[in-house]
Amino acid sequence: MTANNIADATTQSLARVDDVLERFFSLSTTRAAALAPAYEALWKTLRSNTNGGKRFRPRMVMTAYEGLGGEDAEAAAHVGASFELLHTALIVHDDVIDRDFVRRGIPNVSGSYRDIAHTAGLSIPTAEHRGMSVAVIAGDLALTGSFRIMGLAETDAATRARLLDILDDAVFASAAGELIDVDFSLYSGVPSVEEIVDMERLKTAVYSFEAPLQAGAVLAGAAESVITAVGEFGRNIGIAYQIVDDLLGVFGDEHATGKTTIGDIREGKRTALIAYASNRPEWSKISHLVGKSNLSPAEAQVVRSELEASGAKERTERLAGDYADRAVAALTRGKVPQRLIDELTPVVAAVLERVR
Amino acid sequence: MTANNIADATTQSLARVDDVLERFFSLSTTRAAALAPAYEALWKTLRSNTNGGKRFRPRMVMTAYEGLGGEDAEAAAHVGASFELLHTALIVHDDVIDRDFVRRGIPNVSGSYRDIAHTAGLSIPTAEHRGMSVAVIAGDLALTGSFRIMGLAETDAATRARLLDILDDAVFASAAGELIDVDFSLYSGVPSVEEIVDMERLKTAVYSFEAPLQAGAVLAGAAESVITAVGEFGRNIGIAYQIVDDLLGVFGDEHATGKTTIGDIREGKRTALIAYASNRPEWSKISHLVGKSNLSPAEAQVVRSELEASGAKERTERLAGDYADRAVAALTRGKVPQRLIDELTPVVAAVLERVR
Repeated sequence: MTANNIADATTQSLARVDDVLERFFSLSTTRAAALAPAYEALWKTLRSNTNGGKRFRPRMVMTAYEGLGGEDAEAAAHVGASFELLHTALIVHDDVIDRDFVRRGIPNVSGSYRDIAHTAGLSIPTAEHRGMSVAVIAGDLALTGSFRIMGLAETDAATRARLLDILDDAVFASAAGELIDVDFSLYSGVPSVEEIVDMERLKTAVYSFEAPLQAGAVLAGAAESVITAVGEFGRNIGIAYQIVDDLLGVFGDEHATGKTTIGDIREGKRTALIAYASNRPEWSKISHLVGKSNLSPAEAQVVRSELEASGAKERTERLAGDYADRAVAALTRGKVPQRLIDELTPVVAAVLERVR
Repeated sequence: MTANNIADATTQSLARVDDVLERFFSLSTTRAAALAPAYEALWKTLRSNTNGGKRFRPRMVMTAYEGLGGEDAEAAAHVGASFELLHTALIVHDDVIDRDFVRRGIPNVSGSYRDIAHTAGLSIPTAEHRGMSVAVIAGDLALTGSFRIMGLAETDAATRARLLDILDDAVFASAAGELIDVDFSLYSGVPSVEEIVDMERLKTAVYSFEAPLQAGAVLAGAAESVITAVGEFGRNIGIAYQIVDDLLGVFGDEHATGKTTIGDIREGKRTALIAYASNRPEWSKISHLVGKSNLSPAEAQVVRSELEASGAKERTERLAGDYADRAVAALTRGKVPQRLIDELTPVVAAVLERVR
């Protein structure tokens, strides 16, 4: 999903989100510099880990807000920036949990601090723990910043309270999803498709789609039925997005996605694709390969072939399509204005096109 | 410091804090149960890790609030509960950073989840990582809860914004202190007394004393000069408290404090005591023992003797006394009402009596 095809939230609106984030980071970095040089450096690292993203969640906020006639660009920019910082917080802590030190080919917070410590002469395990420790702190700061920026959105008290509730609900859901995911990765059985979809909904779809869209609608002063419909759209398209993401993690074009197509198989990641395959006779040919950490490219190709032969790939694509259909159907309920429907429809196409 | 001697914040006020926390945990646990049984269990663990504490920070809030004539016990209880949850969040994440699985002789969040995973057959390193992963999530929930409960304190918008600023400042300071402490533990040199005091101020004194006292004063509608004076009192008595805590970690009565007097020496914890000693000729006799992980009780006794002989113990006690004096002096500025002075003075005595 790229800047061009997701929705026509204007470049100007996103520039305002960046302005809010820049002001937050500038102020925080200045305050940090007064306390300790190392703390100033941490804030700079956190800033660079927040910059350069696709601003996906702010786009969702803006799409709903502008599509519902909202005109206070500054307030909307605060709501968007709040979700962007929440995203930073969650991925920084998720990387600690997954012991990942790299994200999109660049050292993340844990990785940057691990590398500095290792260069300074500390052993790898000690340097890794130091990287993870600093990332725990950095995630806490981003999480706090998310609530702070949301609280600064200029609107009436009732709306602000509602926005903070939505943000709180998003954290609550993400924590549940992360917890379930931790347990998926530890125990050997393959969960059901329903369990996997539920985990992905909680871990990612709520805070990335449902909550930002609802927040935009709330800020725009939309009717309850519209807020509900927009949230339901977000939940379903968010699930579709995650299912497609998992397909791309195995069958995608590495150049287009920037994501390897072997990592998920090596890791044994529990996805709908794997859950479907695990109930098919073909599973016996690949179960020993899924989760094999030194899997060869040839073995990965065997896994891919059997995932196709078993019909798991097709069923997974259909599942993504079903959730996309539910998303579209949600927009027909609750008197969603045509203007917003027109802005959200390309989001559906963009999500599904990624895999086609 | 016990319930009896710290200040006469009433039992009733603290019971209200417990009520606010109980309502928060009951609601959260119910919401969690609707998502996943494992999530419900996590909330129960977080609740039991929050219960049973001394409610130290709520006491500070109540002491300032009631000493300044505040009468809205329910609003004050929210502010107190917010700081208690912040404390939970910070210790849960601090334990991840310190790789501690036990607190006060009982498994903490990381320890509880490590033990469950190990009993279920996972290896110790995997079980430990699972414990730490869950603790990262749990700390995020407590941190979010802290902001949520503060936002629910019924007061005017300007006061609530100020309270949220104080909470935000407390997180900001704690993160700085934690970061500096992480680096102290990794690099071999002994920092200066000033560096150590500064770290302890940021990591603990701000969120445990300065911020709760200021928040109580703000909620009570105190004059700016009083808010400033009370904050200065808190900062200085908080530093004194930490210095005394470090003395007790080496010279304390284990039965009275519930804390071993060998752990800090084995760990090589950087304290004012150690910083003073490191500049004395006696240091050469004990530098190889400080940080020796298998230190014997006899060797610990050698360390204690040399810390006394070098004058480091006495200088550290004097340093604590100096900060306590500064705390008392702060109360004479800014027109602090006599009633509050009368309530805070026993706090000073209680902090110093712990070591005498």
